[in-house]
Amino acid sequence: MIYLDNGATSFPKPEEVYKAHDYGFRNYGANPGRGGHSLARECARVIYNTREKIREFINAKNTREIVFTSNTTEALNQGIFGAVSEGDHIIISKLEHNSVWRPVEWLRKNLRIELDFCEHDKEGYIILEDLERKIKSNTKLVVINHCSNVFGTMQNLSAIGEITRRKGVLLLVDGAQSLGFEEIDVQKMGIDMLAFAGHKGLLGPMGTGGLYIREDILLKPLKTGGTGSKSESPEVPAIGPERYESGTMNTAGIYALGVGIDFIKEQGLRKIKAHKIALINRLIDGLEGIVTFYGPQTLENKGPVISFNVGEMASTEVAFILDTVYNIAVRAGLHCSPLAHKFFGTLEQGTIRVTPGIFNTLEEIDVLINAIKEIRES
Amino acid sequence: MIYLDNGATSFPKPEEVYKAHDYGFRNYGANPGRGGHSLARECARVIYNTREKIREFINAKNTREIVFTSNTTEALNQGIFGAVSEGDHIIISKLEHNSVWRPVEWLRKNLRIELDFCEHDKEGYIILEDLERKIKSNTKLVVINHCSNVFGTMQNLSAIGEITRRKGVLLLVDGAQSLGFEEIDVQKMGIDMLAFAGHKGLLGPMGTGGLYIREDILLKPLKTGGTGSKSESPEVPAIGPERYESGTMNTAGIYALGVGIDFIKEQGLRKIKAHKIALINRLIDGLEGIVTFYGPQTLENKGPVISFNVGEMASTEVAFILDTVYNIAVRAGLHCSPLAHKFFGTLEQGTIRVTPGIFNTLEEIDVLINAIKEIRES
Repeated sequence: MIYLDNGATSFPKPEEVYKAHDYGFRNYGANPGRGGHSLARECARVIYNTREKIREFINAKNTREIVFTSNTTEALNQGIFGAVSEGDHIIISKLEHNSVWRPVEWLRKNLRIELDFCEHDKEGYIILEDLERKIKSNTKLVVINHCSNVFGTMQNLSAIGEITRRKGVLLLVDGAQSLGFEEIDVQKMGIDMLAFAGHKGLLGPMGTGGLYIREDILLKPLKTGGTGSKSESPEVPAIGPERYESGTMNTAGIYALGVGIDFIKEQGLRKIKAHKIALINRLIDGLEGIVTFYGPQTLENKGPVISFNVGEMASTEVAFILDTVYNIAVRAGLHCSPLAHKFFGTLEQGTIRVTPGIFNTLEEIDVLINAIKEIRES
Repeated sequence: MIYLDNGATSFPKPEEVYKAHDYGFRNYGANPGRGGHSLARECARVIYNTREKIREFINAKNTREIVFTSNTTEALNQGIFGAVSEGDHIIISKLEHNSVWRPVEWLRKNLRIELDFCEHDKEGYIILEDLERKIKSNTKLVVINHCSNVFGTMQNLSAIGEITRRKGVLLLVDGAQSLGFEEIDVQKMGIDMLAFAGHKGLLGPMGTGGLYIREDILLKPLKTGGTGSKSESPEVPAIGPERYESGTMNTAGIYALGVGIDFIKEQGLRKIKAHKIALINRLIDGLEGIVTFYGPQTLENKGPVISFNVGEMASTEVAFILDTVYNIAVRAGLHCSPLAHKFFGTLEQGTIRVTPGIFNTLEEIDVLINAIKEIRES
């Protein structure tokens, strides 16, 4: 099988990550932070180590700013529901995933939160002046998808962060598609919260993700419960990460995620990015004039995501043929992002989405190109 | 190491579970339900299979009634926050874990939810007449810890379910400590929602858990986002389990959990229960008159959890000695359940908690007994 659905989850993982996942499960078997014995403390150290690796990776100031969640969706929900109160105003981009759109629509409907969408140019880049203009006195939160999971449009976080910082509103970034591809420096870029997946670009297992929360921000927790500290209080502690991590954590998964990050550091982000860009370049070159590509026309500010359609064919039909006839795994349809499809006019047809991973080769892209050509011709 | 902290998380797991965890991670690497290709569909089948195993295990009516969460805490938060609205009345027991107490206290403070505690006899068993008496016209939800995670008191769910069913209020059961020890039949017992851990009695990995929700109950979801279905809608689907499972799932963990349940079925619940009771019996016999035991005096309605103290010694000190001198892992302190400690008068001292697992032996219990005797004498 040629797997080109790394935007959903990266596969395969480095052998080191598989080994760590197994080793972690067999050896770090106690409940971290619920201690009284050495193994529980050792498990807490394992969690801490991965926390510190992520802190370093995104240049957060303090290890305590890294909160683990079960996936990006939970991180985004924590960031959104935790930050706003009745009467607040939220601005989101038009390329948001349903893990942002659905929470904010729920808030609009049930908590009288005001909602605005910032405008984009035709490639999907946010028009900065429009974003700035839309910030009002009651604007509390701006949520931006760093890299569109459908079209690959990669926003200029530094420029956006400059605006939100100057205007005194919180910036929550959805880094699901960009972490492990593009360098992110939360301090330099002025990012207040950063949601990320453990199982995509960071090469960890499904069931892992997290949220960076700048240390002076206190959110309402999405869930409360046992934290292993301040047990006697009816409230969870007022500092992170315990405040947001009630319940037993996925120790083996978090351990393996740390090994995924080690792998990325060893390879170097620059090399990984260059490899993925080369794969996308090959695909664009090979299919130019044969398919309709959507999104940015140049690769300069584009993530490792490319969407296209073959004539008028339903994207799901093309994906089905690729899967059953050619054994190529891509994703098709709406990719949980109807807003983005509406913006690019693909709400009906959906798109075929190709998201290459670090282990894909140029030869595999050539197989895909030939398959698409055959489908086009038949 | 002698590990006797299976109430926090079971360890070790059966070899089959370790193997499944590794196999699942290496082979079921696509994002289930986010498909368009065979591997994603295969992963969705893997999730379905475990769902069905749990359905059968608790005798739910429909596979769709089983929702996966990352742990019991998330399941309880989903059940509690999802079920009530402003002005509702909740009744909980006095032996609840912080994963129940903290959410309901939050609701009392922030959403004007009324809260009552039902009364218990001196062993911790709920006084059924009191529970019934406390149900009012605005009572929406009763939350009961099936087996106290500190004292092992095991409530009579059938009798409680008979009352809540007759009175027309929802019964949410915290099954964290009882699943995999005591048979639970949600239909017969009148349980409307059952929260469970995947990583305790069910022998799966940390990072897994779930909530049974009777199919005609529609909760407000704790988080919303991509569900892989009805993408174009601003709301998550109105039926379970997708409604409650936004975001990427822990596929390998859920697969391994299914294998843990297989193991339990092969062994038989009766055998597992008898083994754990034998271990607790041995401990009680060996330490009678030497330590102070808390909770139920007979084993008839007691779970695989036993708490005690050694004279006036701080429980954490005893646990520290057991760990460092004898290499025995137990838990000490408040166990995230201050309500239960208050009830049994151990809020200051905490307790030493022993929770045997399926792989513990009578010989290991003897080692613990001798260690406690030595600590007592020194």
